Amino acid sequence: MNAEIIAVGTELLLGQIVNSNAKYLSEQLAEIGVNVYHHTAVGDNPNRLKEVIKVAESRADLLIFTGGLGPTKDDLTKDTIANHINSKLVEDKQAIQTILDYFQKTNRTMTENNRKQALVIEGSHVLPNEHGMAPGMFVKNQSKFYMLLPGPPHEMQPMFRKFGLPAILDEIEVKEKIVSRVLRYFGIGESQLEVEIEDILDEQSNPTIAPLAGDNEVTLRITARHQSEEEATKLIDSMEKRVNERVGQYFYGYDQTTIMKELLKVLQERKLTIAAAESLTGGLFQSEMTSIVGVSTMLIGGVVCYSNKSKMKLLNVKEETINTYGVVSEQCAEELAENVRNLLGTSIGISFTGVAGPDSLEGHPAGTVWIGISFVGKPAKAYKLQLSGSRNGNQKRSVKYGCHYLLKELQANEEGMGPNY
Amino acid sequence: MNAEIIAVGTELLLGQIVNSNAKYLSEQLAEIGVNVYHHTAVGDNPNRLKEVIKVAESRADLLIFTGGLGPTKDDLTKDTIANHINSKLVEDKQAIQTILDYFQKTNRTMTENNRKQALVIEGSHVLPNEHGMAPGMFVKNQSKFYMLLPGPPHEMQPMFRKFGLPAILDEIEVKEKIVSRVLRYFGIGESQLEVEIEDILDEQSNPTIAPLAGDNEVTLRITARHQSEEEATKLIDSMEKRVNERVGQYFYGYDQTTIMKELLKVLQERKLTIAAAESLTGGLFQSEMTSIVGVSTMLIGGVVCYSNKSKMKLLNVKEETINTYGVVSEQCAEELAENVRNLLGTSIGISFTGVAGPDSLEGHPAGTVWIGISFVGKPAKAYKLQLSGSRNGNQKRSVKYGCHYLLKELQANEEGMGPNY
Repeated sequence: MNAEIIAVGTELLLGQIVNSNAKYLSEQLAEIGVNVYHHTAVGDNPNRLKEVIKVAESRADLLIFTGGLGPTKDDLTKDTIANHINSKLVEDKQAIQTILDYFQKTNRTMTENNRKQALVIEGSHVLPNEHGMAPGMFVKNQSKFYMLLPGPPHEMQPMFRKFGLPAILDEIEVKEKIVSRVLRYFGIGESQLEVEIEDILDEQSNPTIAPLAGDNEVTLRITARHQSEEEATKLIDSMEKRVNERVGQYFYGYDQTTIMKELLKVLQERKLTIAAAESLTGGLFQSEMTSIVGVSTMLIGGVVCYSNKSKMKLLNVKEETINTYGVVSEQCAEELAENVRNLLGTSIGISFTGVAGPDSLEGHPAGTVWIGISFVGKPAKAYKLQLSGSRNGNQKRSVKYGCHYLLKELQANEEGMGPNY
Repeated sequence: MNAEIIAVGTELLLGQIVNSNAKYLSEQLAEIGVNVYHHTAVGDNPNRLKEVIKVAESRADLLIFTGGLGPTKDDLTKDTIANHINSKLVEDKQAIQTILDYFQKTNRTMTENNRKQALVIEGSHVLPNEHGMAPGMFVKNQSKFYMLLPGPPHEMQPMFRKFGLPAILDEIEVKEKIVSRVLRYFGIGESQLEVEIEDILDEQSNPTIAPLAGDNEVTLRITARHQSEEEATKLIDSMEKRVNERVGQYFYGYDQTTIMKELLKVLQERKLTIAAAESLTGGLFQSEMTSIVGVSTMLIGGVVCYSNKSKMKLLNVKEETINTYGVVSEQCAEELAENVRNLLGTSIGISFTGVAGPDSLEGHPAGTVWIGISFVGKPAKAYKLQLSGSRNGNQKRSVKYGCHYLLKELQANEEGMGPNY
């Protein structure tokens, strides 16, 4: 089976948004072995959309549409497809209930155009929308398959994973099982990683290995094919072992995890609590932590000590420390980490101070970062970084480095860091 | 003239990268009034690329290609197009010199495949590459135009701005100037906004109005065409006035701004300082604020009071308040805002407390939010929200609502809120 991904929306053609849905869906389809040979984007124009559908039908078995399922007059994907395949639109009971519930829950009045979102192509397999109002659809006509998905990525992605992908898998006869696993690395660049495993990359066939530079980190996707899923998994296991004999010190987790999630796992297992003092990062470490469910037993709280005043007032940093060493210093980072831990009575204190940029501070260039870590009953220590990104990039990288150093510390101190530590 | 943007590269179809070039070029072409009706992405496959070219020729006057100009075997865009238009490739003198210079400068040996990058379509207008080795091309064949650009955005964008755009402008007779302006709204849904201005949308011609739902907000792009730029701007002004007579209470700014930036503008103008107490949002308000340059004179700092312990310990919230009303309450929000303002001696205190989800808390469903605002010398007040997104979505929306309410308060209190307030 091969697929074409068709994005519908004039905003794409005006360059107002980037077509990230095509990237996401292509990645997902590659994993299950469905070839994507074309992406197309077309505006909110029924005639041009119809022509695009005809072209796609001439070269693909599966047409996946994103966008144009909303309540406004511009949203005409399902009308156009229904018309094209000589079907009609009918109201879906579950979908209209979801919409009514939404308006009731948020105490808003439903405008009549919202009802349009509950219309689906007659006879289609309806894909529920658990993060919005417009349901998706999957429908077969003659030998072609059509999948309609909403445009907003936060609605489209979970719908596709939970309902779209299984519907496609039901239709394709997979002879070989395809198993893939993503290995995540932090603290090593893409080109350095490639050099380390160059010979392995050169001789790859099954499993294949694809390196990809991501958001301040590198991933390797290992994909194996075999008639038996168990054998495919074994192929991956042995490749993982081979790769990590070379670069295992940078490895931190699998698939969709993040370094923050891995840190939280360790804190939870060992029943440790944490508090943070954030100057440079302005609350980013804690907000990333609290974006994850179930963090309340671990993160007690902390301080955003963006000004010197707040460092002294909220965290009792000694004026002498600031005058002697400055705020961009090992001493300040250590004092912040220790004091926030003492203040909130946690097992761990972490601090971030430095120069986010673009201007320099205290004679230190933008990108100078100190990360302090304090454990109960141990002297605090601090790590220095010299980053070279944008202001916001430096803040984000600092948070990842904070997780990385803390994880390494916890792994090195496995013995003494239990709940009774 | 209308254009199709064709990206060539298997990495796009595997979902390894997003097609940001299509977005960039669309934006640039919209500015000069060239309509883009289609984007296409196709892999490094000469037959499929040829078919894509034929389809594009049937519906566009100008075909812009990105990618496939490099030195490897996969790079076959120019071979395919030359073959298609019955032309041939010849070595460009300036291009081969650029390549030789590059290798000399970086002290590396040139491999033979690099020479391929200097080949250009015979008779084409060569677009120099000032940030890489492969030049671009612009060529006319019969009534169609073909522009070939490199794939890496840091090479493609400056080449297009400096050489590509002027080459296109030379070919089109621009009679009218096109001016566009984006109006940004918060606190109103896309469908409600459309209902409010339905008649204006229905009768639009010049200027045109395009609504777009963004990240928890709605934008309207107004675009006018006129022989005089001044007159085009006047057309936009009068349309803006007409629209904002209906929905002006939700309007907060123009073009690339954000509601956080608008809030910071007001704080800066009036020399106001702010401190934040973040429970629900876990530091997100402050980290978004500190991601913007120049915030240090306004944001003194604050507290992430994620646990009840930290609310009491760091912010002196009364145990009685928590026991009587709970932390998800108007009273708690007000106390947090007032206490953080007093603690740090700022003009304004803001607080966020509530239930991010997915679980309920104190009998309140996920998405229940209280935002407290305290000004010096005034009783604190709190706003309630009932949101229905994901955990992280609720946190992000709460931050935007915090900016929104605070901006509205500041606008309503313009008199009494100067620096000496």
